[in-house]
Amino acid sequence: MPKGHPRYESLLYRERVADGVKAGYTSSIGLVAHGRGEAFDYLLGEKTSDYARAACEAAVAKLLEGNAVLSANGNVAALCAEEYVALSSAVNAPIEINLFYRTPARMRLMEQRFLRAGAKQVLGTLEDAEVPGLESERRKVDSRGIFSRRTVLVPLEDGDRTEYLKKMGKFVIAIDLNPFSRTAKMADITIVDNIVRAVPLMEKLAARNPKWHGFDNAANLRGSMAVMAKNLGAQQPI
Amino acid sequence: MPKGHPRYESLLYRERVADGVKAGYTSSIGLVAHGRGEAFDYLLGEKTSDYARAACEAAVAKLLEGNAVLSANGNVAALCAEEYVALSSAVNAPIEINLFYRTPARMRLMEQRFLRAGAKQVLGTLEDAEVPGLESERRKVDSRGIFSRRTVLVPLEDGDRTEYLKKMGKFVIAIDLNPFSRTAKMADITIVDNIVRAVPLMEKLAARNPKWHGFDNAANLRGSMAVMAKNLGAQQPI
Repeated sequence: MPKGHPRYESLLYRERVADGVKAGYTSSIGLVAHGRGEAFDYLLGEKTSDYARAACEAAVAKLLEGNAVLSANGNVAALCAEEYVALSSAVNAPIEINLFYRTPARMRLMEQRFLRAGAKQVLGTLEDAEVPGLESERRKVDSRGIFSRRTVLVPLEDGDRTEYLKKMGKFVIAIDLNPFSRTAKMADITIVDNIVRAVPLMEKLAARNPKWHGFDNAANLRGSMAVMAKNLGAQQPI
Repeated sequence: MPKGHPRYESLLYRERVADGVKAGYTSSIGLVAHGRGEAFDYLLGEKTSDYARAACEAAVAKLLEGNAVLSANGNVAALCAEEYVALSSAVNAPIEINLFYRTPARMRLMEQRFLRAGAKQVLGTLEDAEVPGLESERRKVDSRGIFSRRTVLVPLEDGDRTEYLKKMGKFVIAIDLNPFSRTAKMADITIVDNIVRAVPLMEKLAARNPKWHGFDNAANLRGSMAVMAKNLGAQQPI
């Protein structure tokens, strides 16, 4: 891929997801999710908005309160495994693999991917608890992780999962480029940003040790939508 | 997939593309393109706007003037092969397979797919001409089709291809859910709609034998963007 291509960075990340599919830890449907994210990222101008930055700061403050876990799927592993491990260290919360298209082989490959990226411990393979009511494979969780921890970071949307995590009384932080998604609406904090930008930013913000002052997710979502609407209105090819 | 799922239809079409990948005629990168389309289709409210309908009508009028060809890729084959063949008959323009990830096996599978869908003739496998300047595999075209015909229908974006088809002096009609794309900007007519809706609508419109009265593509694109911006502003989960 030529470096001068107008969509170079975007195409590079797309290739990473395709590589994850080839390696076997990312589902091919992860490519669809990635494409959907690409479109919303166009609308954001492919940069972190002030709203996303505020959401990242609130998210880090909540994660630093402890009793948190970082959920990971195949797209996270493909796009930013190293950065996710760094965030896990910075906020002292373990990574738990939680897959919609769960197979033993994918679980093993995911675990290897995060261990190779430097993770000390990767939860999710134990499968000794369930999210009550959730029908998909994502119901299978770790009693030391998603099942018992109060705060769960869920990058990339899955409306059903978010719904049932909320029913368990959890504090859900989502990273989701789609401000229309059920996840975006139901989460306590929704970071409307690309994970390849949001995750490193969160790690950086953790060093400043921000404190929790509450967060108005509905207002923040409206802000992100306004950014997208403004970019649409600007009628510039991105 | 349960019929009551809020995203049933959308998930069904996604599965069709995934099936195309399994069958071997759709590239896995076609899943990314499909996901991107899903996002823009959310913003359209998943229905054909008045702007898209006007663009379809102008497109059909131009196609009915003759000397036209309908380009096809793996996503078209996966999503609406039968409907594309019906359009091809209705406007009396042949289908030509033109692939970015071109391999002999995919070309053969694509040809079989369209023949099975009822096509009398499928161009593209001959590979006896090139689009001057275009570097990708899409440069390989048929002397009886894309190379020599005046009007080319290109569903689903590829900015480079559109650029070089325009340099050949062709009249380019695009079907592209992304009104920001280079294709959308460079084409003479851009139908901002989902191909699963636009292609059957075009076939229906052909029966009314519309006449060409000119078309302001920039104004039409602004209209589609305004529809998306309005939906974004409505702040409803779709």
